[in-house]
Amino acid sequence: MSYADFEARMARINDVICAVNLLGWDARTMMPPGGIDARGHQVATLTDLARDLATGEDMRRAMDGARDELASAPGDDIRRRALARAEAEIGTLSRIPSRIVSEMAGLKTRAHAAWAEARAKNDFAGYAPLLDRMMAMQREISAAIGGGVHPYDPLIGMYEPGMNYQRLQTIYARLKSALVPLIERAAAAPQPRMDFLERPFPIAEQKAFGLKIAARMGYDLNRGRLDDTVHPFEISFTRDDVRITSRFRETWAPGGIFALWHEAGHGMYEQGVAPEFSRTIFATDIVNLYAVGGASFGMHESQSRLWENRVGRSRRFWALHFGDLRDRFPAQLADVTEEAFWRAVNAVRPGFIRVEADELTYDMHIILRSEIEAALMAGDLGVADLPAVWAEKMRDYLGLAVPSDTLGVLQDVHWSHGYVGSFPTYTIGNIMSSQLFAKAQESGAIATGLEAGDYAPLHGWLAENVYRHGRSSTPEETLHRVTGGGLDPAPYIADLTAKVEALT
Amino acid sequence: MSYADFEARMARINDVICAVNLLGWDARTMMPPGGIDARGHQVATLTDLARDLATGEDMRRAMDGARDELASAPGDDIRRRALARAEAEIGTLSRIPSRIVSEMAGLKTRAHAAWAEARAKNDFAGYAPLLDRMMAMQREISAAIGGGVHPYDPLIGMYEPGMNYQRLQTIYARLKSALVPLIERAAAAPQPRMDFLERPFPIAEQKAFGLKIAARMGYDLNRGRLDDTVHPFEISFTRDDVRITSRFRETWAPGGIFALWHEAGHGMYEQGVAPEFSRTIFATDIVNLYAVGGASFGMHESQSRLWENRVGRSRRFWALHFGDLRDRFPAQLADVTEEAFWRAVNAVRPGFIRVEADELTYDMHIILRSEIEAALMAGDLGVADLPAVWAEKMRDYLGLAVPSDTLGVLQDVHWSHGYVGSFPTYTIGNIMSSQLFAKAQESGAIATGLEAGDYAPLHGWLAENVYRHGRSSTPEETLHRVTGGGLDPAPYIADLTAKVEALT
Repeated sequence: MSYADFEARMARINDVICAVNLLGWDARTMMPPGGIDARGHQVATLTDLARDLATGEDMRRAMDGARDELASAPGDDIRRRALARAEAEIGTLSRIPSRIVSEMAGLKTRAHAAWAEARAKNDFAGYAPLLDRMMAMQREISAAIGGGVHPYDPLIGMYEPGMNYQRLQTIYARLKSALVPLIERAAAAPQPRMDFLERPFPIAEQKAFGLKIAARMGYDLNRGRLDDTVHPFEISFTRDDVRITSRFRETWAPGGIFALWHEAGHGMYEQGVAPEFSRTIFATDIVNLYAVGGASFGMHESQSRLWENRVGRSRRFWALHFGDLRDRFPAQLADVTEEAFWRAVNAVRPGFIRVEADELTYDMHIILRSEIEAALMAGDLGVADLPAVWAEKMRDYLGLAVPSDTLGVLQDVHWSHGYVGSFPTYTIGNIMSSQLFAKAQESGAIATGLEAGDYAPLHGWLAENVYRHGRSSTPEETLHRVTGGGLDPAPYIADLTAKVEALT
Repeated sequence: MSYADFEARMARINDVICAVNLLGWDARTMMPPGGIDARGHQVATLTDLARDLATGEDMRRAMDGARDELASAPGDDIRRRALARAEAEIGTLSRIPSRIVSEMAGLKTRAHAAWAEARAKNDFAGYAPLLDRMMAMQREISAAIGGGVHPYDPLIGMYEPGMNYQRLQTIYARLKSALVPLIERAAAAPQPRMDFLERPFPIAEQKAFGLKIAARMGYDLNRGRLDDTVHPFEISFTRDDVRITSRFRETWAPGGIFALWHEAGHGMYEQGVAPEFSRTIFATDIVNLYAVGGASFGMHESQSRLWENRVGRSRRFWALHFGDLRDRFPAQLADVTEEAFWRAVNAVRPGFIRVEADELTYDMHIILRSEIEAALMAGDLGVADLPAVWAEKMRDYLGLAVPSDTLGVLQDVHWSHGYVGSFPTYTIGNIMSSQLFAKAQESGAIATGLEAGDYAPLHGWLAENVYRHGRSSTPEETLHRVTGGGLDPAPYIADLTAKVEALT
């Protein structure tokens, strides 16, 4: 057994997981309603096969052989990095008992159905028993993976390698102290006009505008495609087939357009991973059995947020592109200036719904959820207490009185799908987006390009500094290489502060 | 190891093959161009896994255990049938050496590319060496599978269990003696008007009309969907997700509409397989590693041809539906009567292109190809002789002088894709379609329904007598059960004779 054997086995695992990704993409975009039960079996079987291939005896022997073969190779040999990464991820995957994996598969289905019903009926009690079981299993998974100081840590690490709750708490404290006054200041200022956003904007033209910009940003439609879904997402089946979705509504144009650029940001990252990493561990998340090239969930989110918010919600961006938009919608935007449009798509409005939150309030939703997850994992909080705790934090962080569990603790689908520990990556991504964008703008060519609507220099810089490395570097390594330091909320706070100053 | 274990393993194999089917459907309908190389790896890996799962030691032990468990069960126990079917198919699959499977995978890719180039350039010589290798491998596969009298037989049996070349020759002889004079008679008669078929028919309205009729026939869109492809096809991922495609051209309305009904006919068969056969050997073609519920390629084709030709090209059908069509295309069909339309979509015109052939000449294309395949497999014919033999048979059977290899031996993609032995199933399907349709019409309710455009009785009869049995019966068993006899061209010849009499 040799390194080549290890590589060949990893390539096959990637193939299987890419097929799982396709089964998922198809279920969300194309599949007729009747196909759902069979699709569940297909996903479960292929996921099991991928897990068996990764954790099986043949792979272990291949890795042993590869380790022997590379014993005298230099420590920074990319093959040694690949092998070490695979051993670590397979180790984590192996520590989660198959008993839990099996029970989790069934539980997710039932919990998701119960959650959807509970949300529709504002009936948290009907969902609580399944949520309770889900949280108990997440604690088991945490214990099985082990490591870390806080029981939340192993779960955070599944999505953001190297991160832990203690570091998060420091970051959250800084964000809260900076954001709460900014939110208050924005809320106290006169609200911008938003009426025109709700005029009818024919969807085909929204899409044409959004895609034209996405292509200018660098999203390659020869290796991608755009479809419609209720919940926008990006998914890849190697760097050469990276698909995005968005949700366009005729009476709320910015929703679909910004979601498209957000997903295109994810997509460009995947499309930019080095070709030689295709079908390797560096394009395969073994812990989550997911085909993905990005370094972590947080680094991925930094790339979507960078294009959506740092670029797409900037004053400069609309100075460049509002004319095109108004040409496409002359009647709808006849009485709107570029400045008014920019103000409208940056309006700060505390609300109950995370996925509709503006840039200022978004992280407060994440901090709330993350603190609750940590308390649940530590056993400091029971499921029965969730509605009250949720309402209390919404009042403290956003000044809102939660009117119902539907608009409160039942907001997000994540827990019912078995995701605990992924919420922090949204805020980590926001922070990284500003760190990377600040660094990028030190280049004169990038700054000049942004002034002229030429996004090729920025895309090229990201491709070179972030995209191509994919999972061959950890998110922290990537940040250090590019910025010279680790995760630092200062540039993000500075960006939001500047934005509020400009808006108010 | 028990029968339940065998069943569980077969279900997982079906899941994997369904995923392969989806990878294929997606590649032909949705995949961006850049994805093609990665998709090849994914299909190859999953196909290998399915093959390994089917032919591996664990499955053999499971089948041994199941056989012991069922030793005292009655001979007609459905579980014994399932086990016997699985053992037979896995036996066939196992006999094809993996060396051939591996070489074939690469050869198909190169042969297909060479074929496409040769066809574009009318350069048979550029393709001949790869075709020669392909035919040599097909002879190896035939020898490996074994059985049969003629070396063509094992290949025919992969697509039509129970069929052999000797039986085919008897059938071909009857067809030739009946069809050649009919074709001559039709060709000598005045040609119908066809000019109006080439008027512009907006595609959306063609689709709406075609789908409305397909739904009336019984195609269930809740468990299916229609997409556009250059080459129409049907594919399933269990009975609950059965997709069809068609190719609509604005200036040739009948092409897209009839192809839709053809594929819907395949689709209804798959949708109608008994639910308890889902994820069993009765919905899995192990020999071809293809997820399909129909009894054979021929029986499948009988279901598409029945709806396309026996129903869709009948005088009665257009008496019922031409009004709807003319309401949708009032300008295009203003000067057209229902009779003229029916005559136009039944025009007999010998041509070089099989996929555009009319009902009368279609089988001559099949007989020609099938005779050539048999001679190639027997070694009576070399690849270098193909252009001349093709031209000779086209002259004999259709009275046409082949002007180029592009319109001759390079017509069909099948050989480059590794299919030898599947052509006869098209003619077998035509024959079965008339046998089954004749039997169905003995029911008063069905005949009355057809007169009134109510296709539910016919669909219900097919569901009961054909669809639900799926692969639990061989095609011959199905025919015997329904018609009381085996494959018999008489009803098909009678249908075509009656049609020519009505048309001339």
